Amino acid sequence: MTSAERVAVVGTGLMGTSIAMAGLRGGDEVRGFDTDAGVLALAADRSGFRPEPSLPACLEGATLAFLCTPIPTIAPLAVEALQVAPQAVVTDVGSVKYEVLVEVEGAVKAEALPRFVGGHPLGGSERSGPETASAALLDGIIWVLTPSPATDDGAAARVEAWVARVGGRPVRMDARRHDRLVAMVSHLPQVASTALMGLAAQEEAGEPEILLLAAGGFRDLTRLAASNPHLWSDILLANKDAVREAIDLYIERLSGLRDMALDGRGEDVERAFALAKEARLSLAAKPQVKAGVAVLQVPVPDRPGVLADLTATLGRGGVNIEDLQIVHHPEGGRGTVHLTVSATAAEEAALALQGGGFEPLRLA
Amino acid sequence: MTSAERVAVVGTGLMGTSIAMAGLRGGDEVRGFDTDAGVLALAADRSGFRPEPSLPACLEGATLAFLCTPIPTIAPLAVEALQVAPQAVVTDVGSVKYEVLVEVEGAVKAEALPRFVGGHPLGGSERSGPETASAALLDGIIWVLTPSPATDDGAAARVEAWVARVGGRPVRMDARRHDRLVAMVSHLPQVASTALMGLAAQEEAGEPEILLLAAGGFRDLTRLAASNPHLWSDILLANKDAVREAIDLYIERLSGLRDMALDGRGEDVERAFALAKEARLSLAAKPQVKAGVAVLQVPVPDRPGVLADLTATLGRGGVNIEDLQIVHHPEGGRGTVHLTVSATAAEEAALALQGGGFEPLRLA
Repeated sequence: MTSAERVAVVGTGLMGTSIAMAGLRGGDEVRGFDTDAGVLALAADRSGFRPEPSLPACLEGATLAFLCTPIPTIAPLAVEALQVAPQAVVTDVGSVKYEVLVEVEGAVKAEALPRFVGGHPLGGSERSGPETASAALLDGIIWVLTPSPATDDGAAARVEAWVARVGGRPVRMDARRHDRLVAMVSHLPQVASTALMGLAAQEEAGEPEILLLAAGGFRDLTRLAASNPHLWSDILLANKDAVREAIDLYIERLSGLRDMALDGRGEDVERAFALAKEARLSLAAKPQVKAGVAVLQVPVPDRPGVLADLTATLGRGGVNIEDLQIVHHPEGGRGTVHLTVSATAAEEAALALQGGGFEPLRLA
Repeated sequence: MTSAERVAVVGTGLMGTSIAMAGLRGGDEVRGFDTDAGVLALAADRSGFRPEPSLPACLEGATLAFLCTPIPTIAPLAVEALQVAPQAVVTDVGSVKYEVLVEVEGAVKAEALPRFVGGHPLGGSERSGPETASAALLDGIIWVLTPSPATDDGAAARVEAWVARVGGRPVRMDARRHDRLVAMVSHLPQVASTALMGLAAQEEAGEPEILLLAAGGFRDLTRLAASNPHLWSDILLANKDAVREAIDLYIERLSGLRDMALDGRGEDVERAFALAKEARLSLAAKPQVKAGVAVLQVPVPDRPGVLADLTATLGRGGVNIEDLQIVHHPEGGRGTVHLTVSATAAEEAALALQGGGFEPLRLA
């Protein structure tokens, strides 16, 4: 067990409040601050941290400070936190790391720099605000830490130990490498989805029937397009070089597929599709990392009443089902239910299902 | 009630066999043929149509012929069907219409052309093969018909009446317009998904940790990449001009977003994201068109046991649940279950739910 910290949480939305709750659960003393007094009061009520009326009051005496605010505010807050709390290791939860690091390095005295450790807990949630915060949100999530060459190794290890204590999976990574990887698998998918939805909306103006012809695949591809515009504007601007590289590589692939089709090179198209298919199937076989939840895979026969048995079994066990997806086998007649429950209820759910004659497999 | 037809089904996979079953249910006489004798036997067993040992035997005497084979084979089969069955209206179920039409027009005698009506039942299924075929697959689906100026209006009306009789929703559209619209909302999403998965797989070779950072959004965007490579190669090549246009427009949008980020034009990024978000939310509010199924929206409180009540209610009513999705409200505490059942069971499901104290809304 690592020793308790005096934690300061700056920005008490979903992630900040969840961090406060996880800290309190582990015995930390936690103080919080938010520029929105209503959000701060809600968060303090929900989690039990001590609300502070100002940033300095929140930071004073802290040993570990979490900055959980929009990206453009992180560097200035880090500079202030490193000065106001000379004992504190300062970390953040932003989705972009290198630009913030450069800004912090340019603005603080060299002796404060070893205490700054960039961080990015992955997974998040489509919900926001302190109302749905939970310590369980951090269970099992990948939490990237991006210490720089100037970072003290002991400071990075402190954050790492804290993350592990609350159930996260710390992964160390260079800030630029982090930004390049998330540009590819998070920022690019967001841009691809928004661009597709924007294009279809533009076409719909002249062709009102176009969305009649859109099936489930189009919905899958455009689901992300409903994300928060302000948040994403911040992310894309802060990570513009890596995003540019990812978009350019993507355009190259799209152009390649277009040219293969135009030239009638059917075998090349088929080969490219087969490679992508293989990669997607191997991804599907991997456990899905999602914040605070566990997925159980339950084989079931395809007949009326089987879901009722399954959900009644869980209901009797007091387990709340977060999500449930039915996957049909190509040969028909049977399927698999992918059951999502909160990570803390996974063990209970598995036992209840076994008791009910099911054979659940735990995925993540 | 429209009069019964002597239906010929050429190609007895999932769609051909489902068409045969829907025809038989409505009193048609149905004969089928497939070049794969095993598939033909399975399909005939499942559906009860009369299997024929050859294409001419299947087509002889037909009044309505459905070509349910891969795209490159449709035009030659149409030519043969128009000749062998001089009384038949000939239609098909391919995803691309204009190229096939041009090929047919170039190959048959002018007097046969009025009997050819291109068709495209949308929705399909991720399953394939006759094993999972069902007349219910056609219930409620959009079925585009693309008569040409040479098509006899009576022939188009015959196919239209048949489609409506089996529960489909016929929509007439010019072949080129159809191809342009599906390029945008079906073929482009497929290419976008395959390109993204291909790019991530390529990056993974040098960065084995990259998929650790991929969350649910990446999975949504790449789900389609597991589609059938051979089928898609046929589709992209047959619709290459419209696909080229769609990909080019998409690249233009991607480049636009890239340049806004590079130039630091945050407000422009935000505006583009806000427009796409608005369009996506209005799409989400529309009923989802899916082959053979109905979606019921059921408001529920967010507590253990509620899904058990709901599914037990349906189980008692003998209703098989095809899929079930839990949508959480941002404010927490309550949610909506999106329940997918076969279209034929929708009425029963709604009644059972109402009897159990739920208030289902029928979506599609």
